[in-house]
Amino acid sequence: MKRKLLLVSNSTLHGGGGYLDHCQQQISHFFGKDVKKVLFIPYALHDRDNYTKTARDKFKTLGGGNTFRLLKSLYDNKVVTEIQRRVMEDGVPYMGSSAGTNVATISISTTNDMPIVCPPSFNAIGLVPFNINPHYLDPDPNSRHMGETREQRITQYHEEPNTPSVLGLREGSMLLVEGNKATLLGTTKARLFSR
Amino acid sequence: MKRKLLLVSNSTLHGGGGYLDHCQQQISHFFGKDVKKVLFIPYALHDRDNYTKTARDKFKTLGGGNTFRLLKSLYDNKVVTEIQRRVMEDGVPYMGSSAGTNVATISISTTNDMPIVCPPSFNAIGLVPFNINPHYLDPDPNSRHMGETREQRITQYHEEPNTPSVLGLREGSMLLVEGNKATLLGTTKARLFSR
Repeated sequence: MKRKLLLVSNSTLHGGGGYLDHCQQQISHFFGKDVKKVLFIPYALHDRDNYTKTARDKFKTLGGGNTFRLLKSLYDNKVVTEIQRRVMEDGVPYMGSSAGTNVATISISTTNDMPIVCPPSFNAIGLVPFNINPHYLDPDPNSRHMGETREQRITQYHEEPNTPSVLGLREGSMLLVEGNKATLLGTTKARLFSR
Repeated sequence: MKRKLLLVSNSTLHGGGGYLDHCQQQISHFFGKDVKKVLFIPYALHDRDNYTKTARDKFKTLGGGNTFRLLKSLYDNKVVTEIQRRVMEDGVPYMGSSAGTNVATISISTTNDMPIVCPPSFNAIGLVPFNINPHYLDPDPNSRHMGETREQRITQYHEEPNTPSVLGLREGSMLLVEGNKATLLGTTKARLFSR
């Protein structure tokens, strides 16, 4: 298996400079000197032209945006299988951040995003055999908000049958996948939840 | 139109006592003395027997839980249309909190929950002609987390065509609907977003 993935938790890190600054080094290293062209998929934001311009100008917010909108457009444009084939068989490097990380996994069932549009399925591209929760947040004992913690939400997910493990990828973390080897990069680490 | 709804933002309020304590008075008044039986729908949590027992014992967390799980079970059990008919035509009072509030609106597209299961549609029971975002949170200028604010998420929703208004119902707030009249109750108010 030739896959080569860089799955980033978030595009901007608090106190970590501008967009993708916190993972600039890993991105350069990941794509290397030989990559001259990047296919940018702007489906996750509404204004695609502007998003693409921004990305082209500054190479920023790659793959961020709304996960439901991104996955629905991947299905609408019939590119889910094609991306999977190119990455898994041909070894084309894939990089995603936030929404772009969610759609690279088994399903988008562990996204934090609002379900603003309805994709035909929650099944995603499946470039790794587990799910990821980007922007993972540890429970905050001082919070006065009564919504479920991220941990409680992932536990609810695991109450469902046959659900895969979920990697809670904290802001500032990213996962580098090369073939069957995955390496956690960044400074903030991750938390793995299994059913 | 006979509808009579009490749509609560959240079941527990920080500093507001135990489950549903903050809206106890409104609930008593809403159901009145003549209501002897309540149909409790435990679909939003995994352990339905335990949830029902808890609700029976303490009349608590009515309609809370996971919105996706709740709506999927309403469809699986073919009760969406029946609930709509009984509430809209026969005037059976409907009360929901959190997830139970989301499914009472046009769609669940403005829930905060994790999409742990995939319902056949995001269209909900449609007891009111708008959407609600329960547990609404104002943007926090001191937050170090880089995920989208609730306001940004709702704005993304309104980038989609033909999307209804969204009532951001803060924790502690609830909406009383009687026929064509809606009254905001509780202490924390709400914020209305229109496309």
